Amino acid sequence: MKNYTSVYDIPDLTQWLNEARELKSNPRQHKQLGSGKTLGLLFFNNSLRTRLSTQKAALNLGMEVMVMNFGKEGWALEFADGTIMDGDRAEHVREAARVVSQYCDILGIRAFAGLKDKSEDESEQVLNGFIDHCTIPVINLESALGHPLQALADAITIAEHKTSKRPKVVLTWAPHPRPLPHAVANSFIRMMQQMPVDFCITHPEGYELNDKIVGNTPVFHDQKQALEGADFIYAKNWSSYLDYGKVLNRDNSWMITQDVLGKARFMHCLPARRNVVVEGAVLDSGQSLVIEQANNRTYAAQLVLKKLLETL
Amino acid sequence: MKNYTSVYDIPDLTQWLNEARELKSNPRQHKQLGSGKTLGLLFFNNSLRTRLSTQKAALNLGMEVMVMNFGKEGWALEFADGTIMDGDRAEHVREAARVVSQYCDILGIRAFAGLKDKSEDESEQVLNGFIDHCTIPVINLESALGHPLQALADAITIAEHKTSKRPKVVLTWAPHPRPLPHAVANSFIRMMQQMPVDFCITHPEGYELNDKIVGNTPVFHDQKQALEGADFIYAKNWSSYLDYGKVLNRDNSWMITQDVLGKARFMHCLPARRNVVVEGAVLDSGQSLVIEQANNRTYAAQLVLKKLLETL
Amino acid sequence: MKNYTSVYDIPDLTQWLNEARELKSNPRQHKQLGSGKTLGLLFFNNSLRTRLSTQKAALNLGMEVMVMNFGKEGWALEFADGTIMDGDRAEHVREAARVVSQYCDILGIRAFAGLKDKSEDESEQVLNGFIDHCTIPVINLESALGHPLQALADAITIAEHKTSKRPKVVLTWAPHPRPLPHAVANSFIRMMQQMPVDFCITHPEGYELNDKIVGNTPVFHDQKQALEGADFIYAKNWSSYLDYGKVLNRDNSWMITQDVLGKARFMHCLPARRNVVVEGAVLDSGQSLVIEQANNRTYAAQLVLKKLLETL
Repeated sequence: MKNYTSVYDIPDLTQWLNEARELKSNPRQHKQLGSGKTLGLLFFNNSLRTRLSTQKAALNLGMEVMVMNFGKEGWALEFADGTIMDGDRAEHVREAARVVSQYCDILGIRAFAGLKDKSEDESEQVLNGFIDHCTIPVINLESALGHPLQALADAITIAEHKTSKRPKVVLTWAPHPRPLPHAVANSFIRMMQQMPVDFCITHPEGYELNDKIVGNTPVFHDQKQALEGADFIYAKNWSSYLDYGKVLNRDNSWMITQDVLGKARFMHCLPARRNVVVEGAVLDSGQSLVIEQANNRTYAAQLVLKKLLETL
Repeated sequence: MKNYTSVYDIPDLTQWLNEARELKSNPRQHKQLGSGKTLGLLFFNNSLRTRLSTQKAALNLGMEVMVMNFGKEGWALEFADGTIMDGDRAEHVREAARVVSQYCDILGIRAFAGLKDKSEDESEQVLNGFIDHCTIPVINLESALGHPLQALADAITIAEHKTSKRPKVVLTWAPHPRPLPHAVANSFIRMMQQMPVDFCITHPEGYELNDKIVGNTPVFHDQKQALEGADFIYAKNWSSYLDYGKVLNRDNSWMITQDVLGKARFMHCLPARRNVVVEGAVLDSGQSLVIEQANNRTYAAQLVLKKLLETL
Repeated sequence: MKNYTSVYDIPDLTQWLNEARELKSNPRQHKQLGSGKTLGLLFFNNSLRTRLSTQKAALNLGMEVMVMNFGKEGWALEFADGTIMDGDRAEHVREAARVVSQYCDILGIRAFAGLKDKSEDESEQVLNGFIDHCTIPVINLESALGHPLQALADAITIAEHKTSKRPKVVLTWAPHPRPLPHAVANSFIRMMQQMPVDFCITHPEGYELNDKIVGNTPVFHDQKQALEGADFIYAKNWSSYLDYGKVLNRDNSWMITQDVLGKARFMHCLPARRNVVVEGAVLDSGQSLVIEQANNRTYAAQLVLKKLLETL
């Protein structure tokens, strides 16, 4: 593994899930591995869980961490090649990536989808710009198209809490007042497609995700039908992919309530809007796994960092 | 002690003041105590002294520190229960507090009074929101109603510099162009009420503080009379509490000058507006203790962290 | 050396350049030197290289680092003496500097030229305000007038890459859409004047720098003539010094192209606007030293920190 940019970078998921469990049982056991190594975290967007859990993971491994809010603290970056840079952008990613590679041993980057221009978002210009020009491993801290640390934490959480060999997992769209990216849904889908689970997706018409990602995964427009017998219900809003970045409806009948939940465990990547995406009572109940998912963000990041440190 | 949210959380002030002196004599003596422990610092408002002294205190104890400007770097928080979160606020403190508790061993929070709505400020929604839902100890880095780390540093400073068994300490209101919170005054009053000092308060009419805090402490509207024979003069502006958050006057005859100071030592929590709150010459004189107060912020924080670490 | 504010603070450049090479060969060899010592970094302006390389340098020396974006996270500072502080500025540098000196062992400060008022910029009020009132060593992380860490990194880079005993080094003005400070040019000039190099400057008429800094260094208005036979071409934009802070022209014939470069090595402090200051192909070629200059920022900072730590 050269970088961790997608769940497809995981060479052996079963082995990783076992190792995550082992790491979690004694988080400081590899404290020497990261000694003298520096993790740089560049944020182009806000963050709570990713910011703190990735720092914590690095500290558990004995690494030093430098955190930078790139947009607010650095220089506006140009990503296109050949530009005459006489506008707002003071530095090219070709220099920035190579420069940062001098100061860090591993680099994490968060750069969300803009949701204005599908082809720009699909080019992953920030993440790919850094990957193309960095000389050190890069970790995706949520990019335009994916959030593979979240998906790994989700997989760890499901592995810990499943009570049958092949649990049923449902990803359901949920309403939200604002247009949100597809990254979390994309990575969760790709992860579930590799897990020993019965997986399906449900969303209203018009909220179809990229069919290259959905592939053969069953999709239902009837949420009730999809959720029947579910062991894990993962709620997440996303904006329309076809009518790119639009909020088509806020149909609150799609909100996950205790009634809808039944006996399933509830999952969400957070932040979650209470009583919009999910009833507050669900989050406050023992069926919610959201805090455990957040906790597992540390071990997901730590596992990725450990694997990358072992290649240095 | 479960949290440090108020000076009332100090179980034995005399013992603490002795221990602070001992810590200060060799700040790194407990370097092992915090090893492998993480302090999270969440700032909802700006900070200089608190930000740096609390970090320094944690480093002295061997802790790791993660600092976050919550408002600028995270998600807008909802504090009210039962809200339909379809507005600006993306995350509820119920989740945020429980999530952060996964990544940190102790959490510090700064959230000032808004000075718009007395009952909202008095509910301490940010600090109490975190305390209610955190599963780790919480330290108040200045809340709407109190600044107990400052008050502890002030007590340490008075204990170090007093030249009589029972010195006279006066808290005097001072003018300021902007409306300021009551937190520093509140905590200082409560601290002095527990100290072996003769303590009184002086302020212009209309600047009465919360009488539940002031209690039996003598209050003078004649500054001259109050300051007579003072050993320590603590100047601080606050906005009106009765006409909540208003600046009623900026009467600069209340400014502390060298003339008014006499032989007393001058104290202020900083930042201090020169030649408004206090004459510049006072701050530049050997009678000023403001830099020593700031220095003692480190040992106040370190003592609190040490006590909390010992409970983990 | 009490502070590092200018290249003139270097007591013996030859010895320093040798020591930099030695440090770079084994960056963690002095890991004990900074143990238990704290570096504070105060940024009044944005930064990428300085922010990360100075942190990295401190970590290499075993120091703890506290980074603060002063303008955004702290209080607006007053620098003038005797002011009645009833405006926007809440704290005086006299207090801020003395307070920060309590929490740190060494302090770095970045405060750019405002380019509005030459005499204000030349007074270096931020840097000098801190130096005057700090009780700990201060490092200039780029001030209104100088960028001595950059110049030291540049000197290290030239020493590493020179292929003759006395290489020819040319500082050339280059076009830029915005008015930029003179700090990098000033410090580079002063550094080259002390190095065993043939050094000259070239810029369009009207872009004369401070003649107290330029001194006897030859200046050409004909770029071609100046660059002839150059071993190192250092490109940098600056705004007019005579018509202070103005952009007089953006003559793109001054851009460094592969054609102009010839066999010389290309240098720039970064960030560099591609195809405005320098042709992209130059930066992408093996003749560019910009990444190595950025890398040497770590060792320049580490050398300065080491020298200051040795005085504590």
